[in-house]
Amino acid sequence: MQTRPTLAIIGGTGALGSGLAIRWAAAGFPVVLGSRSSDKAKEAALQIKAGNGAPAVRGEDNVTAAGVADIVIVAVPFSHHDATLDEIKSVVSGKIIVDAVVPLVPPKVSQVQLPPKGSAGQIAHERLGDVARVVSAFHNVGAAKLQNGGVIECDVLVCGNDKEARDAVIAITEAIGMRGIDAGPIANAAASEALTSILIGINRRYKVDCAGIQITGITANVAA
Amino acid sequence: MQTRPTLAIIGGTGALGSGLAIRWAAAGFPVVLGSRSSDKAKEAALQIKAGNGAPAVRGEDNVTAAGVADIVIVAVPFSHHDATLDEIKSVVSGKIIVDAVVPLVPPKVSQVQLPPKGSAGQIAHERLGDVARVVSAFHNVGAAKLQNGGVIECDVLVCGNDKEARDAVIAITEAIGMRGIDAGPIANAAASEALTSILIGINRRYKVDCAGIQITGITANVAA
Repeated sequence: MQTRPTLAIIGGTGALGSGLAIRWAAAGFPVVLGSRSSDKAKEAALQIKAGNGAPAVRGEDNVTAAGVADIVIVAVPFSHHDATLDEIKSVVSGKIIVDAVVPLVPPKVSQVQLPPKGSAGQIAHERLGDVARVVSAFHNVGAAKLQNGGVIECDVLVCGNDKEARDAVIAITEAIGMRGIDAGPIANAAASEALTSILIGINRRYKVDCAGIQITGITANVAA
Repeated sequence: MQTRPTLAIIGGTGALGSGLAIRWAAAGFPVVLGSRSSDKAKEAALQIKAGNGAPAVRGEDNVTAAGVADIVIVAVPFSHHDATLDEIKSVVSGKIIVDAVVPLVPPKVSQVQLPPKGSAGQIAHERLGDVARVVSAFHNVGAAKLQNGGVIECDVLVCGNDKEARDAVIAITEAIGMRGIDAGPIANAAASEALTSILIGINRRYKVDCAGIQITGITANVAA
């Protein structure tokens, strides 16, 4: 893998996917937006280029995007989650898959409703873990904030059973100005996915638009 | 309910329970430690008194403690959770029950292993919700930090289906120097309970002893 891995964002025309794409493109990563429609992906890539000078971003259908990338970020709605994983499975052998999907169940998106298997991350691990290295991340980052620019006050909890893959995802997280936290095995994805519903509710209850989380106590000295 | 409600801490001789008791006693709340053994509870109360001048803290068996309190905090190990709730049910009618139990499954306590019903909070709601107002809170606060004194850099996610009860628990949280966050319905307890395993793992991985969480973005202006 080169210093700046090529990143595919499956669901790259959605709010979270395009927000991440804007940040990584601006940081100099080659980015390939994936969509079920390659035309939609190409159009979204042109828009990101227009807003950011001439970054290395292009659009493809999901399978082509996943096939050319080193790291594949999955940012589709939960209703498309399993089908999308099956669609890209044949082209992601040995790659890092970053599942950024939150199992929201409309209309009560501010209520935690985790799937019977525990989390979207766990489902991704069960579907792709035999061929790829599945990591879960980016659930708590506000899409609007990513798109609008500026500092993002949110840590990214990074879960997965492969430490090297977690570290790689922490590296691409920190490349766009957010702190990545090694949050342990893929089973722990349940926590960050569940937190998303809480943050959606906090946004409404506290009349803000970008509630996030930070882990405290990491840089503090260990008190005697 | 008077200005400073009487607080019972069931499991008040444990690490979290005694840590909370120390803080509330120091803040002037009448505190009753509950334990299966009233002798153990009385002994723990004497120790807290010795360390804090003469605060209003005493020990009783669990049922007596729950019976005399306005707000009942349950801080027992998950293995005693259901039996403890059943034990106190007859004396908590109309009261606020604060479930602080984390469903850790030893030996892998740094791996999220939520119960089939979703969370300990959800279980408490199902067992006691017909007679009491069940709130879930205090999962992410380090017991050692509570016991040792000093500022605690950790927000408390407060979940429950009764808004007035959530507000009452936020009030007793802020009385001991932590920010309470209205985190929505009891189903959302899954998030804060799951986070505890992540924080235990972070403590080990980052070699710290008091990782916590903070919600960001709440006091910021809403950007245009």
